[in-house]
This record gives sequence, C-alpha cells and structure tokens, in this order.
Amino acid sequence: MNDWLAGPCRVPDQTAADAAAARQATLTKPPGSLGRLEALAVHLAGLQGSARPNAARVRIAVFAADHGVAAEGISAFPQAVTGEMLRNFARGGAAIAVLARELQATLEVVNLGTVNDPGEIPGVRRHVIAASTANFCTGPAMTEAKLEAALAAGVASAADAVATGTDIYVGGEMGIGNTTAAAALACALLGESPVTLTGAGTGLDAAGVARKASVIARALDLHADADTPRERLRRLGGFEIAALAGAFIAAAQRGLPVLVDGFIASVAALAAVALRPDVRPWLIFAHRSQERGHARVLEALGADPLLDLHLRLGEASGAAVAVPLLRMACALHGSMATFAEAGVSEA
Amino acid sequence: MNDWLAGPCRVPDQTAADAAAARQATLTKPPGSLGRLEALAVHLAGLQGSARPNAARVRIAVFAADHGVAAEGISAFPQAVTGEMLRNFARGGAAIAVLARELQATLEVVNLGTVNDPGEIPGVRRHVIAASTANFCTGPAMTEAKLEAALAAGVASAADAVATGTDIYVGGEMGIGNTTAAAALACALLGESPVTLTGAGTGLDAAGVARKASVIARALDLHADADTPRERLRRLGGFEIAALAGAFIAAAQRGLPVLVDGFIASVAALAAVALRPDVRPWLIFAHRSQERGHARVLEALGADPLLDLHLRLGEASGAAVAVPLLRMACALHGSMATFAEAGVSEA
Repeated sequence: MNDWLAGPCRVPDQTAADAAAARQATLTKPPGSLGRLEALAVHLAGLQGSARPNAARVRIAVFAADHGVAAEGISAFPQAVTGEMLRNFARGGAAIAVLARELQATLEVVNLGTVNDPGEIPGVRRHVIAASTANFCTGPAMTEAKLEAALAAGVASAADAVATGTDIYVGGEMGIGNTTAAAALACALLGESPVTLTGAGTGLDAAGVARKASVIARALDLHADADTPRERLRRLGGFEIAALAGAFIAAAQRGLPVLVDGFIASVAALAAVALRPDVRPWLIFAHRSQERGHARVLEALGADPLLDLHLRLGEASGAAVAVPLLRMACALHGSMATFAEAGVSEA
Repeated sequence: MNDWLAGPCRVPDQTAADAAAARQATLTKPPGSLGRLEALAVHLAGLQGSARPNAARVRIAVFAADHGVAAEGISAFPQAVTGEMLRNFARGGAAIAVLARELQATLEVVNLGTVNDPGEIPGVRRHVIAASTANFCTGPAMTEAKLEAALAAGVASAADAVATGTDIYVGGEMGIGNTTAAAALACALLGESPVTLTGAGTGLDAAGVARKASVIARALDLHADADTPRERLRRLGGFEIAALAGAFIAAAQRGLPVLVDGFIASVAALAAVALRPDVRPWLIFAHRSQERGHARVLEALGADPLLDLHLRLGEASGAAVAVPLLRMACALHGSMATFAEAGVSEA
C-alpha cells in the first residue's frame, strides 16, 4: 500500500456551498429555473471553497497505454494505433486536441507505454512503464511495481495541475483494448457478469462482442481470488486506468474538482472510489456514453451525467464537451444581477 | 395573408451534407464515435451549403411582450416584471445577457409592448405594438394588424441577422403570462387538452396550475371556431410568440439555421411549421425544458433536443447553453486530422 493512498480527500466546504445556494435564490430568475446549472454552481462552490466558483483554467490529461489482452483479438483496430495516436494528440489532429484548443485548456499527453513506441515526441510526457500490460487471460496485467508506477503517473499529473493553477481537472485515456480491461475490472468490482458490461468498444459486431465477453469471463475465472480493489485493479486494469484512478484520488486529496469522461474514465472512478470512498464528491460526471457497460457503472456510482450525446470516443472528449456547461454555470452564478440590483419585482 | 409567408423556405443542400458525411468517415476516430456531434455537423453542412459548417457568429434575439391573460392571475410574478426585465437585459444582468457575453454572441432585445413601459433604453429596440395583447378569455389576443406587426418584427430580426452575417439564429422571449398563451396555442394547434400542456411556468403550485388550465380551457371554448394556424396564433398567441414564428420562417427562407430554445420558443416553432411545413429542417432543438407541455410539443415536431438540464427560464437561455455544442461539432468536423493525414491505421 502506498502511503499517499492513506491521505484523506478534502472535505467539501459546506459554508461556501450554502452561501452559493443563498446567492442563487437572489438572482433575477424564477427560483430553480436554471435547473442543473444552479446545482452545478453550488456543488463547485463547495468543492472550490468559494461562493463564486470558477471553471476557467482546465487541465486535460490524456494517458495512453497498450494492453496485453489485445492478443486475444478483442478490438476492431490494430494495436499500433495507440502509439500512432500519441503523435496525433501532439500534432493537434485528434478530437481531444481540437477540443482543448476550442476550450483554451491545457492538454497534457502522457505515454505510459505502447507496443509501437513513437519515442520522444514534443508535447508528450514519457512515463513509460512497459510496452504494454501483460495479457490478463494468462496472468496479472501488472506487477505491484508497475501498478504503483501507473498510479504515481496519475498522482504526478494531478499534483502538477494543482501546482500550476487549475480549476477543473479532466482525465482521459487512449489504448487499444481498454474497453476490455475496463469491463473486466468493473465486473470484478461490481460482481457483474461480462455480458452486462461488455460493449462494442471501437466498433465490434455482435460476434466480436460475444467473443470479447468470453475473454473477460476467462480472465474473471483466473483472477477470482483477487479480493481487494487494489488487487483487482492490478490484475485486470491497465496503466492508463490506474493512472486515472491515481489522478482522481490525488485531485480529491488536494481539493481539485474532477470532470469524469466516459466508460473507461468512469471505471477508473469506480476503482478510485473503491480505494478511497471519500473521492466521490469530487467527481462530476460529464456524459453518458454509448458503450454498453457505462449505464451500470454510473448507477453503481450514483452518477447522473450532464450530457447524453451518444459519444463513445474516449480521450476525455465527452468531458471536454461538458466544460462549457461548467463555465456557463459559473458565469451565470457569478455575473447575473440580483432582484435588488436590477430593481426587478419578486414573486 | 402576408405576401412574405408565401415564399418557400430554402431547401437544404444535400450535396454539402453528403460531402460532410464522407469527411466524417475519414477522421481519426472510430466511425460514429462522436455520436450526435457528427450528425449535427452533417446537418449544419446541409443547412449552410458548406462541407465545413460554422457556428461562430451567433445572433440571439429576445422578444419581450405582455399578455392580457395575466389579468386572470395565471403567473407567480407580477406583470411589471416584463418591463423591468428589459432593463436587466440591456444592462447585462439577466441570464441571457451573461450567456451572450460568454459566447461573444450578438444580443438583440426587442420591446414589443409592455404594461410597465420602460421607454427608450439603450440596447433595446422599440417595436411597440400595444401595451399588451388583449385577454384571450374575452376576445382574440390580437387584431389582424397587430399579428402582422408582431410577425414583421420577427422577420426584420432574421433579415437583419442575415444582412449582418450570422451562422446561427437563436430566438428567445420574455413575457409574464406567456406559458399560458403558449400552452393555449399548442392545445389549439395539436387538439390537446389543457391538462396535458399546462405547467407551473415561473413557479405556480398545483392549485395555480389547475386554475391556469381552467383559464386555458375557457379560452379554447371561446375560440373553438378558429380553424387555421394563423387564426389560432392571432387569437391565442402573444406578440413575442408571433415574432418568433415570423423570425423562424424568415430565417428558413433565407437559409439561416435556427437554434430553438424551450417551451415557448418550441410552440412558436410549432406555429411556424403549421404555417409553413418547409421550416422544419431549419430548426435545431436545443434542450428539453422542465415545463410540463414541452415534451408533447417536441414529440409533435419530431424533435430530440441536444440537452436535458431541467431548465425552464426561457429568454433563449437554454439555446445559448447549447451553442458550444454546435461550435465544438463544427470544430471537430473541420479541424480533426484524417487517418491519412495523421498516419493512423484504420480498422
């Protein structure tokens, strides 16, 4: 057990949240008429410890890594794509790179290890643990040392985000085969069957999904004796999934709100909450993914995402699309006139 | 019948939409993984006649007007608020003013007539038709001349938006009592009962909603012989509802895509489509409102809004909140790298 994991997460500031709720009631609109945007501003006020929350400075961290389970033929895309996409993130052509520019967000790309290693790329942080995890159908995905290294990569990212000034932390991932790892890990954490949580990923047909579910079932049998969240993460997770879990915990420990992306990021959130339940209030769920298992994972987390746009790309793209909602919630909260200021009659 | 209403709406450009769909298939992501953002880019391509659509230049027009039916005590707020809010729009303290600044959108505020007339206000266009519509429980809301003036205000707004360069037109409204007028009009257009379409508006309790539904029922009885969409709009509508309908039609005639706000704007859209069915493809529905009748109106229009954030403010606020989705859909579509450009392997 790493020492840092023993540190408690920050407790949200109820006084700031109450002050924000009181302010909402004075703004020139029927009470409650801005719906979830009001709740979001009040929630962020509690997390940021300020009656006037802010979502201007956004850090988007994308962790890329390969998966040994790709050897089982569970993806519609070749494994070389993970390394190729690292260049595409850095050159600005990937979806999340386009969105980060739109949002004027800081994009951090972390290479945790790819089979097709692109080497040094400007704009990509190398934190290579191995070319890939091991195939969890034949053994644990990670050694204890590799799990620690992956978690530490996430902790370093969140700590850097805090040190450089960040209002909202967004975590994303890229890795051929990672819906398989995420589904396997979620099955183990939730005691669910693979059929419930296995989806099409990047585009498998029905036969491909069935084969993927049977691969996951074999892995769950092999690792049935893994009886702690940490051990399940080590045996069935991936470098990027562990990094995201580490980043979410480290952000919550430092009082930095997290905007969670889709299926894989949500499974990382599930692992983070299993490791440290006090992470949960720091997680804002951005969107409901099309990936089959996401609904069950969200339910387990008691999460009701802001958006449902049938996205299933990952890379933090769905979370990025939700960033303007946070910004508009903060702008409305901070800049609308009160009834008294505007001289408008109340109900 | 006004001559301008006889003019057909532009036919969306299928060639541009096809070119956009072909481009989507080449971008570095699993096909379809950006879900509704892909469909949105392709739809906008068809509307704008360009394989690379754009949502940078946004015009938000807010039409304010008072309603004679307010005399029946159907609102939680006093009628003076409509005029008071005109100042709040102009001074920047209203929700839509805050959002327009966030979006760097052009905000146009049009005073169509308020009981509490604020007079000339910098930043508010005066197009005063009367202090309010007539109480439609005792007679038609508008004379034919007043209906024409209201429609014309909307046509002028859309024409000005086109003349000054606009990618997306957003229409909003403010008017104490206008959920009552909108519900009455929707009942008449759809043959629905008031109980189905009457909601809490700015915050009525259950008894208030029941009284409001009975007021609408009386009005529907009185105007049961209104047998054309235009006559229903004249007798049961409001100045701002007619202006929005006129604006939507005029935008569609000029090839300008419209982002539709919540319940009242959607009822204006329903009236516009009843007057000219070829308006429909030009309407993009932003959000599902909490106001009770909205679901039925959306269903009648075959609309599946982008957002569901439990909003019920009006002023175009829900449409404004959806503008970044259009911008991000266009940015992804226009700026993502193709598989060939990025040297990424395909499935």
